[in-house]
Amino acid sequence: MRFELTREFISNLQELIDQYDSKTVSELVAPLHSADIAEILNELSSEEAKFLYMLLDGETRADVLIEMEDDARERFLKALSGEEIARQFITEMDSDDAADLIGELSEELQEEVLQHIKDVEQAGVIVDLLSYDEDTAGGLMAKELIKVNENWDIPTCLREMRKQAFDVDEVYYVYVVDDDNILRGTLSLKKLLLARRDARIKNLYKSDIISVRADTSKEEVANIMNKYDLVALPVVDSIGRLMGRITIDDVVDVIREEAERDYQLISGISEDVEPTDNVFMLTRARLPWLTIGLIGGILAALVLSGYEDELRIYPEMAFFIPLIAAMGGNVGVQSSAIIVQGLASNTLGIESTTRKLMKELSVALINGVILTSLAFVYNLARQETMALTLTVSTALLSVILFASVFGTFIPLLLNKFKVDPALATGPFITTMNDIISLFIYLLIGRLLYGIF
Amino acid sequence: MRFELTREFISNLQELIDQYDSKTVSELVAPLHSADIAEILNELSSEEAKFLYMLLDGETRADVLIEMEDDARERFLKALSGEEIARQFITEMDSDDAADLIGELSEELQEEVLQHIKDVEQAGVIVDLLSYDEDTAGGLMAKELIKVNENWDIPTCLREMRKQAFDVDEVYYVYVVDDDNILRGTLSLKKLLLARRDARIKNLYKSDIISVRADTSKEEVANIMNKYDLVALPVVDSIGRLMGRITIDDVVDVIREEAERDYQLISGISEDVEPTDNVFMLTRARLPWLTIGLIGGILAALVLSGYEDELRIYPEMAFFIPLIAAMGGNVGVQSSAIIVQGLASNTLGIESTTRKLMKELSVALINGVILTSLAFVYNLARQETMALTLTVSTALLSVILFASVFGTFIPLLLNKFKVDPALATGPFITTMNDIISLFIYLLIGRLLYGIF
Repeated sequence: MRFELTREFISNLQELIDQYDSKTVSELVAPLHSADIAEILNELSSEEAKFLYMLLDGETRADVLIEMEDDARERFLKALSGEEIARQFITEMDSDDAADLIGELSEELQEEVLQHIKDVEQAGVIVDLLSYDEDTAGGLMAKELIKVNENWDIPTCLREMRKQAFDVDEVYYVYVVDDDNILRGTLSLKKLLLARRDARIKNLYKSDIISVRADTSKEEVANIMNKYDLVALPVVDSIGRLMGRITIDDVVDVIREEAERDYQLISGISEDVEPTDNVFMLTRARLPWLTIGLIGGILAALVLSGYEDELRIYPEMAFFIPLIAAMGGNVGVQSSAIIVQGLASNTLGIESTTRKLMKELSVALINGVILTSLAFVYNLARQETMALTLTVSTALLSVILFASVFGTFIPLLLNKFKVDPALATGPFITTMNDIISLFIYLLIGRLLYGIF
Repeated sequence: MRFELTREFISNLQELIDQYDSKTVSELVAPLHSADIAEILNELSSEEAKFLYMLLDGETRADVLIEMEDDARERFLKALSGEEIARQFITEMDSDDAADLIGELSEELQEEVLQHIKDVEQAGVIVDLLSYDEDTAGGLMAKELIKVNENWDIPTCLREMRKQAFDVDEVYYVYVVDDDNILRGTLSLKKLLLARRDARIKNLYKSDIISVRADTSKEEVANIMNKYDLVALPVVDSIGRLMGRITIDDVVDVIREEAERDYQLISGISEDVEPTDNVFMLTRARLPWLTIGLIGGILAALVLSGYEDELRIYPEMAFFIPLIAAMGGNVGVQSSAIIVQGLASNTLGIESTTRKLMKELSVALINGVILTSLAFVYNLARQETMALTLTVSTALLSVILFASVFGTFIPLLLNKFKVDPALATGPFITTMNDIISLFIYLLIGRLLYGIF
């Protein structure tokens, strides 16, 4: 039942498209899931993709469009008029997908598309959704849901649900509201399955439910749904009226995106890229950090040039430059990464910042003493001078202590000022860490070589 | 409705527990969700936690236990006998949670717990589940599900579903099987809601469904559920018989864990730690990589010591050691990270390895030429010698090209041999990258200083 995309499949398909063999192409893709067709389209040229696309039926077209990669979709939509977009896709889509799609378009095209949506109610819903920030619960929610009034009896409830269910892809919960549309609770489908015909909604629903306000950030939405193991989360306005619902599939995407962004920051990639992107995009994503790294390297060279005389007399000091710089960077990234992960998964605990720093300092002290002892023994064994041996050891310990405090403090500080703490694992801070480490090393070297 | 854990709440609670005020403590935690109570327990001492725990009712106890952090849970279970574990928790749990919990115990304790499960059928189900590798679909699945026979009519179906639904927490799909328990399709609850009373199952169910074999890896399960936006995925045996189902909440955990593991590897942390863990655990997670980094630094020192004479005569060569080492490391990590992310999210595309390497080489060439030019202009402007200017530039370009190929190739190679490709972003490979970069630099320096 599952489809595995292969190079053979694509080249076979391309051949058929070259021959305009629409019948065989249709037969090939007909049994496939829209997610699989989207994957195929990502691999085809713009021309080929359009040929295949035109062979799909309306609903599949809309689904495939949602599943496609952003840049492939953008290419596609550029070739269409507002009227075509409205008629071919929007009418078939859920409100949240439609709003996301329209939100990606230019303002001009947005207007045009909205004017061509025949169903005024649907257009109204989409306009409402477009007004929310896309990084909030309002931006994630869909308007399609099943809700029943707490005062209904079961037969009325079932009748109304049948009406509403046509619009809803998946039914997870039935929401219960009062006469003012204030969310009162949820009715699980299981309860409904088990209920006797003469039961009343009032006595069936669960009133103790978790909901979010429309302005809740999407990260918080993801944390709440994950913590409480929810598949759908209702969204309410400031007085508790039911506005929409967020489903787990959207939240899985949020979780993935968040994790990917943190991963990209720590690996020095400045925008969302995939191995299939073109050379230009891949270069653009990577050059900024490398440039900062280059500037950092040049600053390090400047710092070192201030110690040219020492390096000429004691060239062995240069031997340990990579060790000191690497250890400073490594310890700093470790410290920051633990804080960043704790903030992301909300497992930072309730310890005060002072206690966190004290703990981090203890860890650094243990690690530092062990590693410094190793370095000390190594230099003793190599019969290096006491000046070098002591310089490397003292500098190593200082650098480990400094980097761990710096690496813990910076993400906490960024988070306090509502800046993404993952920036602390990025180029600017790590490069600073390298340079300061080097500076500490050289300073201690000058001092100790002066004494011994 | 949502609860925010604060230091005030905890200290207030601790005071009440100190006074053995079970009535007030009960009132405080009664309205809370089990996930919130678990969070509170993580913050309390073993003694305090036990006091609170004993005030909870049976079902809440089981739920809280599942939500607790691994180490806190382990502490708890140690104090209990097999009989207590079986009676207090297992009977209230879904089969997958029960199997996970029992799987964490020592073999001896496992036996004891299993013997004390009164419901022989439940014990049998758990033993079945324990036989699967925990990293596979079998290890993720629960046995509780709702299934109907394709030959039933709607009234029979509803009657049987009511019977089965008692065991199932959330009903997302109804599975349709034939007389041999072979999975034929799914019946959505929406379809059932909309169906007329006289309809027959045969004509209602969707036969085109996605399922996995019990030995499918959990990473693949996560990718499939994410790609096809599924909230539940049926698991079948080798001849297609329905074995169980995997729900999205378990898969969200898999996605989080995977992302966290990759993040930990790239940040040089060797095991799963959280900011709330103790100093010993945090140290143990960080020391291994730092040790490898130290060994790498010492190897770099050895490489450099082979060039002591050059460094004495041309100390300016030492100035650019940090630049070269950092750039090699950065480019390598970027290249590996893109491949690792592509492999994890299954977006590597269908390009051949040769094409991937060629593309990577193009990106490296563009980045390399830009960065090398900047470095070249800088050294010219500083009126450095031609030998140094050319050495730094040539080495920088070579290092960028080498590291990008190395960084792309290694994770692909690891993946081919079924080793976690994220290892390529870890300490061993990045340290190797640093040392090789340094070696290239020094070699080019010796060569060019010999010429100029």
